[in-house]
This record gives sequence, structure tokens and C-alpha cells, in this order.
Amino acid sequence: MWPIKLPVQAAVPKTVAIVGKFQAVGIAQILSDIAVFLESHGHTVVFEAETAENVALQGYDSLTTEQIGQHADVAIVVGGDGTMLGIARQLAPYNVPLIGINQGRLGFITDIAQDRMIPALADMLEGKVEAESRSLLEARVYREGGEIFRALALNDVVVARGSTSGMVELRVEVDGRFMYNQRSDGLIVATPTGSTAYALSAGGPILHPSLHGIVMVPISPHSLSNRPITLSDSCEIVIQVVSGREVSANFDMQSLTSVLHGDRIVIRRSAHKITFLHPQGWSYFDTLREKLHWNEYPSIEGRLQ
Amino acid sequence: MWPIKLPVQAAVPKTVAIVGKFQAVGIAQILSDIAVFLESHGHTVVFEAETAENVALQGYDSLTTEQIGQHADVAIVVGGDGTMLGIARQLAPYNVPLIGINQGRLGFITDIAQDRMIPALADMLEGKVEAESRSLLEARVYREGGEIFRALALNDVVVARGSTSGMVELRVEVDGRFMYNQRSDGLIVATPTGSTAYALSAGGPILHPSLHGIVMVPISPHSLSNRPITLSDSCEIVIQVVSGREVSANFDMQSLTSVLHGDRIVIRRSAHKITFLHPQGWSYFDTLREKLHWNEYPSIEGRLQ
Amino acid sequence: MWPIKLPVQAAVPKTVAIVGKFQAVGIAQILSDIAVFLESHGHTVVFEAETAENVALQGYDSLTTEQIGQHADVAIVVGGDGTMLGIARQLAPYNVPLIGINQGRLGFITDIAQDRMIPALADMLEGKVEAESRSLLEARVYREGGEIFRALALNDVVVARGSTSGMVELRVEVDGRFMYNQRSDGLIVATPTGSTAYALSAGGPILHPSLHGIVMVPISPHSLSNRPITLSDSCEIVIQVVSGREVSANFDMQSLTSVLHGDRIVIRRSAHKITFLHPQGWSYFDTLREKLHWNEYPSIEGRLQ
Amino acid sequence: MWPIKLPVQAAVPKTVAIVGKFQAVGIAQILSDIAVFLESHGHTVVFEAETAENVALQGYDSLTTEQIGQHADVAIVVGGDGTMLGIARQLAPYNVPLIGINQGRLGFITDIAQDRMIPALADMLEGKVEAESRSLLEARVYREGGEIFRALALNDVVVARGSTSGMVELRVEVDGRFMYNQRSDGLIVATPTGSTAYALSAGGPILHPSLHGIVMVPISPHSLSNRPITLSDSCEIVIQVVSGREVSANFDMQSLTSVLHGDRIVIRRSAHKITFLHPQGWSYFDTLREKLHWNEYPSIEGRLQ
Repeated sequence: MWPIKLPVQAAVPKTVAIVGKFQAVGIAQILSDIAVFLESHGHTVVFEAETAENVALQGYDSLTTEQIGQHADVAIVVGGDGTMLGIARQLAPYNVPLIGINQGRLGFITDIAQDRMIPALADMLEGKVEAESRSLLEARVYREGGEIFRALALNDVVVARGSTSGMVELRVEVDGRFMYNQRSDGLIVATPTGSTAYALSAGGPILHPSLHGIVMVPISPHSLSNRPITLSDSCEIVIQVVSGREVSANFDMQSLTSVLHGDRIVIRRSAHKITFLHPQGWSYFDTLREKLHWNEYPSIEGRLQ
Repeated sequence: MWPIKLPVQAAVPKTVAIVGKFQAVGIAQILSDIAVFLESHGHTVVFEAETAENVALQGYDSLTTEQIGQHADVAIVVGGDGTMLGIARQLAPYNVPLIGINQGRLGFITDIAQDRMIPALADMLEGKVEAESRSLLEARVYREGGEIFRALALNDVVVARGSTSGMVELRVEVDGRFMYNQRSDGLIVATPTGSTAYALSAGGPILHPSLHGIVMVPISPHSLSNRPITLSDSCEIVIQVVSGREVSANFDMQSLTSVLHGDRIVIRRSAHKITFLHPQGWSYFDTLREKLHWNEYPSIEGRLQ
Repeated sequence: MWPIKLPVQAAVPKTVAIVGKFQAVGIAQILSDIAVFLESHGHTVVFEAETAENVALQGYDSLTTEQIGQHADVAIVVGGDGTMLGIARQLAPYNVPLIGINQGRLGFITDIAQDRMIPALADMLEGKVEAESRSLLEARVYREGGEIFRALALNDVVVARGSTSGMVELRVEVDGRFMYNQRSDGLIVATPTGSTAYALSAGGPILHPSLHGIVMVPISPHSLSNRPITLSDSCEIVIQVVSGREVSANFDMQSLTSVLHGDRIVIRRSAHKITFLHPQGWSYFDTLREKLHWNEYPSIEGRLQ
Repeated sequence: MWPIKLPVQAAVPKTVAIVGKFQAVGIAQILSDIAVFLESHGHTVVFEAETAENVALQGYDSLTTEQIGQHADVAIVVGGDGTMLGIARQLAPYNVPLIGINQGRLGFITDIAQDRMIPALADMLEGKVEAESRSLLEARVYREGGEIFRALALNDVVVARGSTSGMVELRVEVDGRFMYNQRSDGLIVATPTGSTAYALSAGGPILHPSLHGIVMVPISPHSLSNRPITLSDSCEIVIQVVSGREVSANFDMQSLTSVLHGDRIVIRRSAHKITFLHPQGWSYFDTLREKLHWNEYPSIEGRLQ
């Protein structure tokens, strides 16, 4: 079965880091509730520095992401999937497991509702969790032989045309084998986590997180047979910009670099992984059904006779 | 603006036919409520024969569909979109406008909720309506020169392979011009009304009912560039079965005939039209948003930063 | 039948304008061949000014596009579909019919091969043509009540996000009725001519040019049920930018304006039309089959047993 | 790198089985050429029994598929992908590597052209090969607790409605977790090999054969968010028929069983694998480019300015 129970030891006091989307209305109270609960159960609570600075809660240590990586046993992230993406990438090198709490409607990776968070955390910190591991991509951009940019992506690396140019032409190589020259608006290279984000909008398939795969989804490709292709995540993908103006490479739509003709973007699976913790009984399919409205039969009538 | 106000004369007593999906639980009470309301407002109420037979309501005339066509000023249909499709096709030659009431969740063409039906009908029978006209397809199947089958379709004509054969090959001609030989699971030829039914599932576009169009949607076509194509509804489409086993032609998924190699299915717009009446203020886009969940933003997170 | 024979009078000397993609290699010789042929048949040859300037051919008048519009009976365009798009938009107000000659592989709207051009032109100038009429879109951008930009489009109007922003949210109204708020990379509003260009790449249907339709194709929409929708070309479409950064409106991917939050882009069918002339026997479906490889069965094996 | 060099020992005489699509015109000569070549190089040639019976070639042993499985070192299959599929399934338990020769245009898995076959075989039998391993699915159908059908599939298992019924509703479970109830024309469960067959027509992604994945592709699903989903091939998929008439389960579109409400179709990766041998330098992407016309830029013009 996919989610493996982590050997999180029950009832052992832990150092728990709290990260919040500090701009959100009402966030201070939620973070405070979590902190009070954790302390009352004997855990050490630390706050991520930027969160601490913006949400003035007294009496807790404030740590940089790096310090959290070194000292925390688990990090609780309160916000949306975007908040989670950002912090997960930063914590990836440290292997700190993450718990995601969502203030609003549930996300794909922030799957605990705020109003159920205290009992959920109580159970989870006693070891009643489903842990699952998510892979990341590491992308490097080379220009004239030298590396000019490097980034991690938990969702996707997107190489795309600028808005004032017609199409981009990309030459794609996989494990040293020529794949194709593709003309399109761009190309999305996504992890299973990213397969339900931009890649899905662009017509890509869903990849179960337990599949060791990467999916390449062309954005509005010129050739109608340029379909999404799923590769093993042990591949090395090299994308070279052949033509197109104002081309950029985006990482989780959160960081960005512009790329020039001849630049090579080299993408491979990162050596790091991210561990998400979910309440016991959690299932990836429950999330899919909820997020994609698979429970309902909304769209089409008149076929049922 | 698309929906045109019909010259339904206000306050003139009318002959109103009632048609119900008689198998549905609780339908007798709903039909009775409608009949009582109509009579109390001076209208003459008649029941469609099969409905009358199955839902024993005393004191009303029972008419065949043909008689309803000749005598009724308007027909009220209670059921789902499938019920509406069936009766609309039968009444098409008589130009009796139709009002659709849905017991459960609203349909594309049965858009009045049961719990709002009495006030809606009160307004509508006073002439406060949006009327819109829907086209139908007429299909004829020819074998060795002779016509062997003829049917109307409000949604679609579907020529498809049997479940035990690999693919069907269809030769398609439009207005006497060769279009293509297509290999696929089949071909859907849909009206705007049908564009939100099977054709949508198979990847077709939505056609606004005011567009005088027909859409041809291939089902799982062998060639990836065999995309849906929208034609003027003044076209004549001829489909000939070139190869494939157990091929059938379906009309609104409600009637069916098997077709052999060499058979020609000739499809054109019917001379008849169907008029749907909606409450004032109705908009086709409201229905689309409701049915297709366009109000919500469910599916994809992590693109919002 | 769709293509209507134009009352081009046979054998009457005409004023013929020549427009060429002057950057193309070998173009001077082709243009010269055409001019010599036309003169030898008694026609008056004029050259479009920019073409004349770049391809030094002696002895012909050089006219501005406006002058061509006023004086020419027909214009011959040598180049690709992009060249044709550009000149067609400029000549639209003057109703000069266009003939498209393609140096390389045939285009959707430049459908005469260079090596067959002389006999084709001989026939066509004698009136042996199929003429067909293509609609254009007229788009106006309003800011704070005032019009700030106006353009014609023969293919499409595209409102899209900038490459550094996550998504654009657009509010769409049709004929004064609210349609939806759409979140996506952008929205393509295409004519039948444009339906085989960018709109097709983005998943839209093909619209036959004889259909009086417009298709709206969302680009990578956030909601998976935001499907392409085909409207009557008598509609007025209003797109308002709700959120998103660096949003632009593009016209045939050839002209561009940036749009701000609150700007309204109003799109309707232009009062002008463009007439394309084709050799007799031409069929739109022949072009589709050729361009989309419908003649071949390339893609998928193993379904044929 | 994906294709691994097999330890096929060079220059050692081998027992080579020949299987041909015996109905094909001109096949006898091709098979004879291969046999003569093989014998002249010291190999022992045997013919598959049905091939031998239909293509009368004297002087060779005729073996059943089972005997080939037990005695042959390699099998050469001459025909199309369908021929290859059929024989590969039968030889799967014996791990005999397969070489595919195509009389006509190349297939996805029969990638050696007839006119290059002799030099190709010469090299390959000396060990100059790229070998790659393809997974199969094993499907079992259970009724009232008992197994009623079992089959292997190299391409796909397809559970689909009959042509006279509206939709099928399938309940899908993966590794004991409920996934969804899906209403559609049917569901394709495909291997990487099958991902370029029916699944591709139905909108599925391409799966590289080195990816240990399975893809589930709904056929014309009722819910527009029922997108293809890629799973690890270590999963067990259980499909139960909830509603629909004349439902069948198809294996490689070559064998078939009808399924009733309540029947459970259990699909998992087979313990067997199939080894395909390709000429040295072969690349899966070369096949994709060739078969899907990725070399060409045919479809869409007017975006290039």
C-alpha cells in the first residue's frame, strides 16, 4: 500500500516549527491556537522568522528556514498550496516532514481543515500518520558552458515564450537521445505533485505520487500529435531554446529566469525528497475526488436512457 | 439578444398538456398540483396518454402525442432531460412550445426546479417568458438505394462500432464534397442542444443554441488530428460505413438501427424546430455555469502566486 | 454549395496588385514571372510599395495599400499565411479579392503552389474561380470609458497573461449577459479562419468558413470544464481583465496592446469581409486533409485486428 | 540509459523461430529469405506451426508456440503490430526475446523494415542489439467469488459498454482504496506499450516503456474532470460493473469476455515480461517521431510572425 507509516515515535516531545501565510486574515489566532496546543502537550514550538516577524506572538523562538531544517522534527504549514510549495522547497535539503493546514478550502497538499486541526494534530503527533514521499526536480540553466541558474521545483519547471512572441521552438533530449524539436507556447516538466497543477490545465495526465515519474506537457503545441509524455524520474531532460523571444524558465511559478537561444536547461530528479504527513486513513484518491468533484455527476445529461 | 419574447398572449385561457416521467417516485402529486393550479386559472388541462394511464388522475382528458400536437397551446414536461428529449422529438412537427420542470437537479433543458414551479408557471402562462428555438436533425439510412430508416434527433446522431470490433471506418461527405475517411470508435453529429451531451464527453465544443451550427465529433479517432469540426446547419452530411463490425446508428441514444457496409446515413437539419419556454431573465450561460460548475474554481491550486 | 462563383468577368483586362514576402529568397524572380505573365495578357500590374522598394523591379507603378484598395481589381499575395493575414487586414475595407501563392508548402489561406501558379492564374483571371468570403473581428479596448486601441483580426484576438505571472482572471460577457469569470493563461476569440491557427493548438474545434460563428477557446484553463464554446458571429463579446499581471491583447499575433485591470475589450464581427479566390474545384476539406494529414493513418497501430 | 545491451553471445549458433502473418501477400518469399539466411549462418530454423501450415516451406521443423517457448533462443515475427501482440502474449511465459519485421510501414513494435531485414538480422544475431523489456497486464474476472476468465494483455484491458446502451458505470478501486465511480463509454487500462494504441486515441498520455507505470484512460467520461491517471505498475486495480448493458472486457482488442453487474475485473502487472530486440542505435523516440509525424510541422500556420 502506498502511504507508509512513518516511525514517528508516539508521545515523545518534539520540536515543532510553525510557518504561516502571514498575510491571511485571522492567521494570528490560528497560529496561536496551534502553538498553545503544542506547548501544552510538551512540545517545543518555534516560529519561522518571517512568520514571527509579521504575526507578533510573544514567547517563541524565531528560526530561519535553515535553522528549522536543522532543529525541527516536524513543520506545520498554515496556508494554501502555494505557501506549502514555497516552504517545502526550502526545507527539502533537511528532510523535515511537513503537515499542511488550510484556512480555506482544502488544497492538494494542504489537506487538513482549520476547524479540525487540533484533534488532527493531536493524533498525528502521537504517530498516527500516513507519510508519503514526494520527489522534486532540480533544474540548472547553462549558458556558454557555465551554469547561470539553479533551482528546485516541487511542482514543475516551465519553459515558455514571452507574451509578445508567437511561438517558442524547443529542442528536447532525454538521457542523451534526441526526442523532438517542439513548437508551442512552452513546455511543462512536472512531478506527480505538479501533475494536478499547471500541467493538468494544459491537458496532462494525473500522476499518482507513488509513481516514479515525470510528465512533459506541451502548452498549445503546433503539432497536434505532440501529446503529453510520461518518463521515468531517473531521466535527465535537456531543453534547448532554438527560437522564440523573451523565453523564460519558471520554477513552481515562484522563481524565474530568462533564457536565451542556445541556453540549455538540464532537469533531473533532485537528491532530496519531501515528506508530507497526513492523518491516518488519508488517501490520495479522496483528495482527487474532492478537488476534482469526482463525487458529483454534474456535467452531462441526456445519455442515461 | 438571443432569446426572443414569444407573443404568448397574457391572460388568455389555454389548453395545456402535461407529460410526466411516470416512473419517478412522487410524480403523481407534482402532476396533480400542476393540474389543479392550471384549472384554477381557467386553463384546460389534458394529459398525455401514457402519463395518464400510469398516474391515475381523475377528471382530465387523455390525449395521444399527436392529439396534443394538434390541440395544446403549450406542453409542460416533468422529468429529466431524457424525458424532455423524447417528447420534444414527438411534438416537433406540431410546434407546441415546451416548458421543462425537473424533479431533481436541474437539467440543460429542464430548467425549472419543482419547488419553484407554481410561481414560475403563473408568470410564464401570463406571457412572461423567454422563448428559444432549437433545431433538430433528420437522419435517413439508405441501403441499396432505398430508405430503410428515418429518425429525428434533438441531441445527436451517433454512428459507432460494436463493442466486439476494433474500429469503424467511415467515409464522410459534406454537401457533396469528400471530407475524409475516418477511423475511430464512431462519429457524433450533434446539434447545439446535443453539444452539451455526449459530444462534450467526447471532446467536442459547446455550441450556443443561437448558432446555426452542427458539430461533428469523432470518438477516439485513430488520427490525432481528427478534431471536432463545426459546420453550418444548412449542410447535408453523408456518412458511409466502409468497414467495421456491428455498426449502429443511434438517435438521441433513444432509438437505434444497425447499419451495414455501404449503407449511407444522410443527415440534415429538420424542417421542424422546437420551442423551449423559460422564465423571464433566463440565460443559457446561467445554465452552463450551473451545470458545468463554472462558478467554482475547484480543480487546480498552486498557480496563484 | 459553399463556394460561390464570383461574377468575375472573363477576359476583361484588370488592374492586378502584387504583394510579396520580400524577405524570402528567390522572391524577385517569382514576382517578375507573375508580372510578365499578367502584362502579356493585357492586365495592368501594380506593386505594393514596400514590396516594390525591396524587390527592385523596373517599369511598374508602386501603390500604397490604400491605393491598391481603391484601384486594384484583385491582389495576388506571394508568401505564407502570415503575409496573407497582414495584407488581408489592410485591404479589408476595400473589398479587393485576394489570391494566395505559396513559395513553400501550402498554407491554409495561401493554397496555390508556386510551380503551378501561372496556369492557375491564367484560369482564375478568366473567371474560373471559387470565391469565398471570410469574416473578420473588430476589437476595441476601452479604458475609463475612452477607446484606447482598435484593431481588426482575421484569425483571432488573444487576451493573455504575461510570462512572469501565474494566471489571468477574465470576466466575459456576451450580448450583455454574464458568461463567466475565467482563470487561465488567456482566452482566444477566433474566426473560422483562425480556428485552424492558435485556437486549434489550444484545443479548439475547426469552424468551417461558411459557418457564421466565433469560437472562444480558453488557454490552459484552471477549471477543467471551461471548454471551447462556439457562438454566433452576430454576438458582442466583452472581456474585462479582473486580475493578472502584464496582460496583453494580441491581434492575429501581429499587433499588440497591453491591457490593465478594468480595461474592457469589446469584440464583434467587422463590417468588412475578405474575399479569397481559389482555383475552380477547390474545396476547404481538401485543404484540411492536406494540412492535417487526414489522408494518412499514421498514429496508432494495434487496434485493427 | 534505457535500452540495455543483452548478453546475447555473438557468433553462437542459435535456434531461431519464425512466425509470420501468413495471410499477407508475398509473405512466403520473405519468410524463405530469412530462413535461408539463418541456416547459411549456422542457426537452426523452426517455424511456428500455423505459419508452417499456411506457408508451405519444406525442410523446417514446425513447432507449437509452447515448443517455441521451450526451445527457441529468439523469435522473429514478420507482420504488423497486431501479429506481434498476439505472439508476444503467447510467448510471455517463456521469456523468448522477439524481433519484429514489418512488411509495410513500420509499427511501434515491429520496427525493422523488410528491405533492411537481412543486414539487420545479421548484426542482431551477432549480439549487436538494444534489448528492452515490456511489462504485461494480467486480468482476472470474478463472478460470485469464482474466477471465470483470465487473460494477459500487452497493450490494454478495456472495459466498455455495449453499443446499444447509454453509459457504463464502473466502480474503481486501487490497492484496496476507493478511487471513484466513473460513468463513461468505458475505461482503458494500458501498459506503456498500449499507451500509444487505443489509450492515445482516447486522450491518454504516452508512457515511456522504461517507466514502471500503468495508465487509466476513461473513454468519453461523463464528468469532464475524469482525466487520465498514471499509476505505479505495482498496483492492483479492481473494476466493478455497477450499471450498463452488454458490458465487455477486451484484452488487446484480441480476446473478449462479457461482464455482468457485480463482476470484478482484477488487473495487475503480470509476472512475465516480454523482451523486444532492436538494432543497435535504436531509440524509442525515433519511433515516436516517425509514427506521430513529430518531424514535420504540418498543422498550423499563421502563428509564426
